[in-house]
Amino acid sequence: MENFQYVNPTKLIFGRNQVNDSLAGEVEAYGTRVLLVYGGGSIKKNGLYELVLEQLNLISNVQIVELSGVEPNPRLSTVNKGIQLIKENQLDFILAVGGGSVIDCAKAISVGAHYDGDVWDFVTGKAAPSSSIPLGTILTMAATGSEMNGNSVITNWDERDKRAFSSIHTYPKFSILDPQNTFSIPADQTVYGIVDLMSHVLEQYFHVSENAPVQERFGESILKTTIETAPKLLESPESYAYREVIMLNATFALNNMLSMGVKTDWATHMIEHAVSAVHDIPHGGGLAILFPHWMELVSETKPERVAQLGIRVFELDPANKNTRELAYETIQKLKEFWKTIGAPTKLSDYGIDNKEIDLMVKRSIVNKTIGNYVPLGENEVRQILERAL
Amino acid sequence: MENFQYVNPTKLIFGRNQVNDSLAGEVEAYGTRVLLVYGGGSIKKNGLYELVLEQLNLISNVQIVELSGVEPNPRLSTVNKGIQLIKENQLDFILAVGGGSVIDCAKAISVGAHYDGDVWDFVTGKAAPSSSIPLGTILTMAATGSEMNGNSVITNWDERDKRAFSSIHTYPKFSILDPQNTFSIPADQTVYGIVDLMSHVLEQYFHVSENAPVQERFGESILKTTIETAPKLLESPESYAYREVIMLNATFALNNMLSMGVKTDWATHMIEHAVSAVHDIPHGGGLAILFPHWMELVSETKPERVAQLGIRVFELDPANKNTRELAYETIQKLKEFWKTIGAPTKLSDYGIDNKEIDLMVKRSIVNKTIGNYVPLGENEVRQILERAL
Repeated sequence: MENFQYVNPTKLIFGRNQVNDSLAGEVEAYGTRVLLVYGGGSIKKNGLYELVLEQLNLISNVQIVELSGVEPNPRLSTVNKGIQLIKENQLDFILAVGGGSVIDCAKAISVGAHYDGDVWDFVTGKAAPSSSIPLGTILTMAATGSEMNGNSVITNWDERDKRAFSSIHTYPKFSILDPQNTFSIPADQTVYGIVDLMSHVLEQYFHVSENAPVQERFGESILKTTIETAPKLLESPESYAYREVIMLNATFALNNMLSMGVKTDWATHMIEHAVSAVHDIPHGGGLAILFPHWMELVSETKPERVAQLGIRVFELDPANKNTRELAYETIQKLKEFWKTIGAPTKLSDYGIDNKEIDLMVKRSIVNKTIGNYVPLGENEVRQILERAL
Repeated sequence: MENFQYVNPTKLIFGRNQVNDSLAGEVEAYGTRVLLVYGGGSIKKNGLYELVLEQLNLISNVQIVELSGVEPNPRLSTVNKGIQLIKENQLDFILAVGGGSVIDCAKAISVGAHYDGDVWDFVTGKAAPSSSIPLGTILTMAATGSEMNGNSVITNWDERDKRAFSSIHTYPKFSILDPQNTFSIPADQTVYGIVDLMSHVLEQYFHVSENAPVQERFGESILKTTIETAPKLLESPESYAYREVIMLNATFALNNMLSMGVKTDWATHMIEHAVSAVHDIPHGGGLAILFPHWMELVSETKPERVAQLGIRVFELDPANKNTRELAYETIQKLKEFWKTIGAPTKLSDYGIDNKEIDLMVKRSIVNKTIGNYVPLGENEVRQILERAL
C-alpha cells in the first residue's frame, strides 16, 4: 500500500422513513435559513417535496429558498445561480434532495458561496476550497456515491467541458438514505445507477499499488452483491430489500474506502466525461459502453487483474486457461451482464458517430496521459472511442 | 437491514513514518497540554517513546504529563489516576501510544475528565458521556480496532468485572497506524491480535437481521485476507507487507462498518470478558478457546450461517453435505487454523479449572440472556465453559 489518510465525516442515516424521523433535527443543528436544491420536479410527483417542506417547517423561524431545475449533468451556470441565492438571502444551510447531480451542484454551491472568484477555479486547480456552507442531502437515486464523499462533477456548457473536483469541505454533514425514495426511479435510470456504482468499484480495483488484498476483496464484495441483486431489482422495482442493497452498495463504492492506500485508475471516467460533455448522454450509459473497451485495451498488456475479477466475481473456472483467455472471458461476462440489465453497448445507440471524435479525445486528456493501470495517450483514447462507436 | 446511523469521524493516518510526518501537526490542532498514556514500557525499548517526545516537543509551549503502566486489561483505578492528572494539570489533549488496552484506558479518561461521578457509571448505563477531552492515538498492535471506534473495555478489579461502553465522544480525533510500530510485538501477542480481529468479524457476521449480503461479504473479505496473511506474518514478523494487511484488517473489523443495519451477537465476547475478569488471561487467547465451542452450540439449531462461512471463507465444497455437516467442518477448519498459528485451545492451557465456573457464568450474563444469533442463558453459557475447560 501507499501511505494514506482516510477520514469520512458524513453521517449516514439509512432506512425507512428517516426523513420524517431525522431531517428537522439534523438541519437545525446547523442552521435555519435553508437553500433547498432539487432537480426536474420528480420529487413533486412522488410526495417527497411535500414531506421535506413539512419537516423543515417544524424548525422554528425556518426560511426556505428554492433552487430547482438542476440538470442531469449540472451546469456551472446553475451553481452560480445557487451561490447568488445564498448571498442575497444570507442562507446558512444547503439541503440537496435528489441524485448525484443535485448533490454535486449543491457541493459546488457550498464552497462557491465562500469564495470570491469563479467556482470553475476549483475544477482547474487554480484555487482550493477552504470553507463551506454546511450541506445535508436526501438521496433519491443509488448511483454516484456523492452522498458520502467530497466529489463534485460540474459541466461548463460554454466550454463543453465536464470536470470533477474534490474537497474535505464538500462532504455532506449528513445524508438521509431511505430506499423507498428510489422506488419511482425509471428503469433506465436504475440501470445507469447500477452501471455507475460498478464502474466506481472497477476504477479503484484497477489500481497500481502493491499489496492491497482487502481493498480488492471489498470491491469484489460490492460487485458480486450488485450482480446478484440487480436483475431481481429490475423485476421488482418496488422491492425494499433489493433497493436497500443497491443503495448501500452505491454509497460504499465511492466513499474512499476502496481507494485506501492505492493509486487508482479513472481513465474510463475521464473519457466518459468528455463524451457526455460533448454529447450530453447519461453518465451510466456512457460507462457501460466504454468500460469493456478500456478493459480490452489494457488486457493486451496487463490481463492479470481482469482475470482475477473474472475468477472471483464471475466465478470463472481458471482450469486450462491462460490469463489472457480468462481476461477476455471476464470482459464478455461483464458486457453480457450489462446488456442483460438493459444498458447500451455502443455510442451509436445514442446517435454518436465519429464526427466529434477529435474533440472527445482532446477533452479526455487533461495532461499528457490519463489513468494509471495503463496510462493512455491520445492514440489509446481514440482507439477506445473508435471501438465503442 | 434494520434502520441505522453510521458515522465515524476518526482520521486514519496510515503508513511508514507517519509519526514523524503527522504527529505534531495533528496534536497542535487540539491542544498543547498533553496527557501521554502508555503501557508497560515496550515503547521505551523500541524507540517509539523517544520519537513521540521528540515530535511533541516541536509544539511550542507543549506540556507533557505521563501516565504509564496501563495494564493489559486496563483497570478502573488507572483510569481514575489519569482523570486526576488531567484535572490537576488542566490538560487539554490525550495521546495514547499503545494497543487496545492503552487506547481504551485513554478513552475512559477522556470522558471521565468531563464527568463528576464515577466512570464506572458509563459501563453500568447509569450515565452517558456528553463531552470529552480530545484524544489521538498511535497504535502499536493490530487487534482491537479501538483506534477507529468509540468502544472502551475497562476492568473493575475490586468487583472482578470487565465491561464495555461506547460513545460518539470517545472516537479518537486521529489514529496513526505505522505497521513498523508492530514489528516488535511478541509472537503470542501477534497471534492474540489475529484471533481478536477475526472474532470481531465473527461477532458481527452472526447477526440476526434479514438481507445484509454486502456486510457479510465485507466480513468474509477480512477473514479470508487474514487467513491468507497470518501464517506468513508469523514466519516473517518484520514484513511490512504482512503487518500492514493485518493492521488495516483489524481496524476495519471493528469500525462499525460490518454492523451497519444488523443486530449482532457478541455473546462470546461477554463470556470471554467474564473469564478474563476472573482469571486475567489474554483476551485473544480466551476468544480462540471459546469461539469454536459457541459455534458448536449454535450449530445444533442454526447451522446455516456457519456453513456459509465455511463455503465462502474456508472454501469447503458443499457437494453431498448437509448444512450441519458443513457447519461442523467449518468449526474444525477454524480450530485448526487457530491451532496452527499457535493459539490456545482449552481453558486448562491457562490453568483454569471448573472451580470458579459459577462466578464466570454469573459475570457473563448481564441481563437474562446474552447474544442474539442464539440467545444464551446460564445453562448454555455453562455448557460452553465446561466444553472449553
